[in-house]
Amino acid sequence: MAGNTLGDLFRITTWGESHGEAVGVTIDGAPAGIPFTEIHVQAWLDRRKPGGGKISTSRKEPDTATILSGTFEGKTTGTPITIVVENQDAHSGSYVDIKDLYRPGHGDITYDKKYGIRDYRGGGRASARETVGRVAAAALACEILKPLGVSILAATVELGGVRAEKRAYEKMGENPYLCPDAEAAEAMDARVDAVRREGDSLGGVVEIIADGVPAGLGEPVFEKLDAALAGALMGIGAVKGVEIGAGFDAARMTGSENNDPIIPEGFSSNHAGGVLAGISNGAPLVMRVAVKPIPSITREQVTLNTKGEPATIRTRGRHDVSAIPRVNVVCEAMVALVLADHFLRQRAVKWTR
Amino acid sequence: MAGNTLGDLFRITTWGESHGEAVGVTIDGAPAGIPFTEIHVQAWLDRRKPGGGKISTSRKEPDTATILSGTFEGKTTGTPITIVVENQDAHSGSYVDIKDLYRPGHGDITYDKKYGIRDYRGGGRASARETVGRVAAAALACEILKPLGVSILAATVELGGVRAEKRAYEKMGENPYLCPDAEAAEAMDARVDAVRREGDSLGGVVEIIADGVPAGLGEPVFEKLDAALAGALMGIGAVKGVEIGAGFDAARMTGSENNDPIIPEGFSSNHAGGVLAGISNGAPLVMRVAVKPIPSITREQVTLNTKGEPATIRTRGRHDVSAIPRVNVVCEAMVALVLADHFLRQRAVKWTR
Amino acid sequence: MAGNTLGDLFRITTWGESHGEAVGVTIDGAPAGIPFTEIHVQAWLDRRKPGGGKISTSRKEPDTATILSGTFEGKTTGTPITIVVENQDAHSGSYVDIKDLYRPGHGDITYDKKYGIRDYRGGGRASARETVGRVAAAALACEILKPLGVSILAATVELGGVRAEKRAYEKMGENPYLCPDAEAAEAMDARVDAVRREGDSLGGVVEIIADGVPAGLGEPVFEKLDAALAGALMGIGAVKGVEIGAGFDAARMTGSENNDPIIPEGFSSNHAGGVLAGISNGAPLVMRVAVKPIPSITREQVTLNTKGEPATIRTRGRHDVSAIPRVNVVCEAMVALVLADHFLRQRAVKWTR
Amino acid sequence: MAGNTLGDLFRITTWGESHGEAVGVTIDGAPAGIPFTEIHVQAWLDRRKPGGGKISTSRKEPDTATILSGTFEGKTTGTPITIVVENQDAHSGSYVDIKDLYRPGHGDITYDKKYGIRDYRGGGRASARETVGRVAAAALACEILKPLGVSILAATVELGGVRAEKRAYEKMGENPYLCPDAEAAEAMDARVDAVRREGDSLGGVVEIIADGVPAGLGEPVFEKLDAALAGALMGIGAVKGVEIGAGFDAARMTGSENNDPIIPEGFSSNHAGGVLAGISNGAPLVMRVAVKPIPSITREQVTLNTKGEPATIRTRGRHDVSAIPRVNVVCEAMVALVLADHFLRQRAVKWTR
Repeated sequence: MAGNTLGDLFRITTWGESHGEAVGVTIDGAPAGIPFTEIHVQAWLDRRKPGGGKISTSRKEPDTATILSGTFEGKTTGTPITIVVENQDAHSGSYVDIKDLYRPGHGDITYDKKYGIRDYRGGGRASARETVGRVAAAALACEILKPLGVSILAATVELGGVRAEKRAYEKMGENPYLCPDAEAAEAMDARVDAVRREGDSLGGVVEIIADGVPAGLGEPVFEKLDAALAGALMGIGAVKGVEIGAGFDAARMTGSENNDPIIPEGFSSNHAGGVLAGISNGAPLVMRVAVKPIPSITREQVTLNTKGEPATIRTRGRHDVSAIPRVNVVCEAMVALVLADHFLRQRAVKWTR
Repeated sequence: MAGNTLGDLFRITTWGESHGEAVGVTIDGAPAGIPFTEIHVQAWLDRRKPGGGKISTSRKEPDTATILSGTFEGKTTGTPITIVVENQDAHSGSYVDIKDLYRPGHGDITYDKKYGIRDYRGGGRASARETVGRVAAAALACEILKPLGVSILAATVELGGVRAEKRAYEKMGENPYLCPDAEAAEAMDARVDAVRREGDSLGGVVEIIADGVPAGLGEPVFEKLDAALAGALMGIGAVKGVEIGAGFDAARMTGSENNDPIIPEGFSSNHAGGVLAGISNGAPLVMRVAVKPIPSITREQVTLNTKGEPATIRTRGRHDVSAIPRVNVVCEAMVALVLADHFLRQRAVKWTR
Repeated sequence: MAGNTLGDLFRITTWGESHGEAVGVTIDGAPAGIPFTEIHVQAWLDRRKPGGGKISTSRKEPDTATILSGTFEGKTTGTPITIVVENQDAHSGSYVDIKDLYRPGHGDITYDKKYGIRDYRGGGRASARETVGRVAAAALACEILKPLGVSILAATVELGGVRAEKRAYEKMGENPYLCPDAEAAEAMDARVDAVRREGDSLGGVVEIIADGVPAGLGEPVFEKLDAALAGALMGIGAVKGVEIGAGFDAARMTGSENNDPIIPEGFSSNHAGGVLAGISNGAPLVMRVAVKPIPSITREQVTLNTKGEPATIRTRGRHDVSAIPRVNVVCEAMVALVLADHFLRQRAVKWTR
Repeated sequence: MAGNTLGDLFRITTWGESHGEAVGVTIDGAPAGIPFTEIHVQAWLDRRKPGGGKISTSRKEPDTATILSGTFEGKTTGTPITIVVENQDAHSGSYVDIKDLYRPGHGDITYDKKYGIRDYRGGGRASARETVGRVAAAALACEILKPLGVSILAATVELGGVRAEKRAYEKMGENPYLCPDAEAAEAMDARVDAVRREGDSLGGVVEIIADGVPAGLGEPVFEKLDAALAGALMGIGAVKGVEIGAGFDAARMTGSENNDPIIPEGFSSNHAGGVLAGISNGAPLVMRVAVKPIPSITREQVTLNTKGEPATIRTRGRHDVSAIPRVNVVCEAMVALVLADHFLRQRAVKWTR
């Protein structure tokens, strides 16, 4: 099957191109009777909007969601839910001059190789705008997870080489970078300023924590919970690496350092990041993703045109300096979608006569 | 569905427990007419065997494969192929004394939480022995990929904190660690010696390179080639992190540093690791995985018994010091399985009237 | 997964309720480069409209399709295609008086049992209006099949007990019943008249013929072509039986009567209906479905209310006397959707180095 | 994906050829903790054996099942269960003389068209022997359904044109045809005698009844319970038609005749056959399948050889006169497999906070 569907029981299919009529999502498999309206969706979409500040574009994306099906009198009915968000403020015209050029770091060249045809307007399907559908669906995933006490949070723990040393999550919202370390946030601010002036862009690291996940989720051996999460997070456009728990640091530990002692309260450390043998162990899930710098930069770059001839390209217009912090809510969304699916899957197989 | 199946068109289901009757795999979706016999399988199984040396166990695993179905006169017929490997030399008895204890770092506790029942003998389904099925299936995946010119190689680039600086792949086989840097291999040797004496274990980093992958493989947006690879690699027992191309280093680059210029010959760098927007770009695929230290150590550890009471545990018998280098062939297998599947998927949708 | 998705490689998900905002379909897996616009869709939707005449309702369904995604400059791009049709002329008000009653022969009672909640307006998701999405998707399936020379036709071969003896397909369009026997069509007309006056409804048999289907389609053993077709056709609301080739008559033949002799031109008879061992054999596919009488009748019926108390019900308003002939295009659609999927599947596995 | 897998949550993959090493099944998704041993499997396999009498072959199929994985101490563990049955008494030699001929009514010609290669020994994968895997898996499906009170029974209601008028199920076992009408069974006996002497074969109709199925199973709109059952039953080799409830007779009824009045005890008739709008309604499921006559007959038939040249063929050796009654247990198996899957699916989505 083609790759626009995620999940097995809680299953979403996103659709839509950056400059097409609309973007959206079709959700199938949600249990019936869950309170769910456009208000739930809008709260998530609003968090995805350009935050203003120095780091984001000024493309206005009002992004008003309409639920076309699957709810009745404010509740899900068990039938498929389609959510649509119309595209507006999309200046397709501004892309015409690059329609015959492959932008480095983008999917222009690979889409052409794969499909032999490409909607070049604003990246088409490969645009980050596609994530509107994911975020809208996550609003419902969270309503499924909420009664379990699950909460999910994505924090910027590194940007442009500046690392957050603290984890003061409660103060994350006080800076535009969603950074849990106020001092680091200031240093990030300076870094963003400098790089913006140079017409360049930045990457970083986002840490996602899911609290309250019950033990027992995850399907060994190929659909382990961490494998599903890694696949989902690596499926975000800018992500080039995923780790769980101690992650790459675990590679440098000994077994006696890395093993989490088991105690009556749970575990006395969490190097495992909440997953053992692919199944959640009741400790918080802790993941980090590497976000590459945005490939659209105003500096001149070497490339080819669609005829295969050497050319140079320089991205016009205003672009985000980093996918962070707008990608953070997408990280949360992907984790929510995976957890909701695995929660339903576990309900199916847990044997309770 | 339960999680023992990988792939969409080239689809494998592994089955079997460490100390059950047998382990094996059922493969469905292989094209007909591919030369495939037990000889192909055996070559892969042999690479998975304990290598001897200082790092591996002495469990004898003759691991003789029998193909029960799906081939005729030495070729695949398009019908499902089941390969079985009997379990031998499995001393279940030695596990009885830990059947009521949860081994830290293992899935004992999570299997109990998930299923309420557990085959405790040798880790049961969570044992690395399950990978026999993956490796056997990879033998066929590679026969599908071979005509395309794809070759896959997994090298140990870090072990116990010792990093390989060189990439002399042609000499990898000359040391027991599959390390492409002879000097580093010697330092690894010393590190293994020391840690073994301490009754402890080591982790490391494996780098997997797939050469000759045609451009156009991968299904955006959720089944991107890198997402599928990340999910597959994170689905290996000991893996706690996956990165592609520059990976976490990309998070510290600027866009102008990270973007790979496009030139007539391809790309003048490969920070992307062979994938753009989820689709292969014709450059080599480059991935690295973080392998955690083996949790079974002879040092005493704090844990609970199955009644939830505090206890201590000390793993008896001889265990591997590291999952490396035996996990390397499993990494190659997972990459081969994903590529074969995506190759078939691309054949289905490429429109050529 | 929930049941709103059909197909493996050519995969559609329909969504929408009879009296919700809209109905539609999301198609994933279509090859890129296929000419496809709203004009293709509209042609199919128009065939689904109430034909007027004595047999259909007067609900006006302009049913204007909008393609929201997945095409660019009149061609498919390989990305998901969402087609939406707004609901109009839907008098929800008229359903309020039966919202607390279970209509016999309808899904009211089973939806309540399954989901505990139900959009009672016009049958909600169980309405025949859901087939708008199927028919819209079939327009694309047919564009995939067209280059192969496949043509599909659904003829009314029985209505209210009146059987068509002739198969003058070219004259089918000359009567409102899509009956290939003009004389039978007249008898059907009289039968419809009589039954309408009695406030009752009729069933019948639709025969679907798919010509030009290449040999080799179908995946043994569970996704045989005939099994897939049977599942798809039985998935149409009013269908209670499906047969292929000689069907139930085959049960009364001997082997020597039923076997189709193989000759250089193909087969000298077609009792198999174009499928042997689940794989198409190059002969025309011939299927017949039993269509039950529409359950909405103006005669008084015995039922329960949603509290479980005995009640009577009498459907008001004007209803179709039979699902035939409006269901015919839906039958064609289901066959087209299955064939397009199996055609892509066969492309994936046919080994041609 | 290839077609050897059935089910979504309770998922089986059968494998094996008639004259290969073995046939078997891999089951994934069974809940943990269900008592299940080879004894359960053997009981089902024994019912599948040639019954002797006038109608079946004398091929000895001891069919001893071995469970290779997925159980521990007599219970399922939630991991995949592989069951293997070795092939014995298979005289491949006797098939060599027909390896270059296409047997009419068999899949020889279509397998060649599809795959370009074929295991001609005994029909290979297309042999009824493949159903060993289905029947073995059904043994487990029934253990899942048993606590619900579900019972499934397949009765021969027509053979060679002789119809059973009575439904004395309790006496079915007293005749070799599993016919619930003793008089009809005697007439069947005479018919079988006559046809056997003529070197010909017979078809018939099997009725399957599933009692105790809870209301609420089935996923609209494409995976309706009746659609899933129709697909599963049509996926049995010899089946050419499937109907549910009144089936094709419903096409001749009026709505007032066909609608089942709803009463406090359930329904006062069962023309629907236990399914409304694709969801079980609590009444017994009633299905009938048309079984074609066995194509292997000793009479001479017209065919082609694999070079496409005209030829004649005459099946040697002793063959069953009809797939009935050996196919009956396969019908039961398919129904059990579908119900177990849909039962687990319903557990996943039923919202009970």
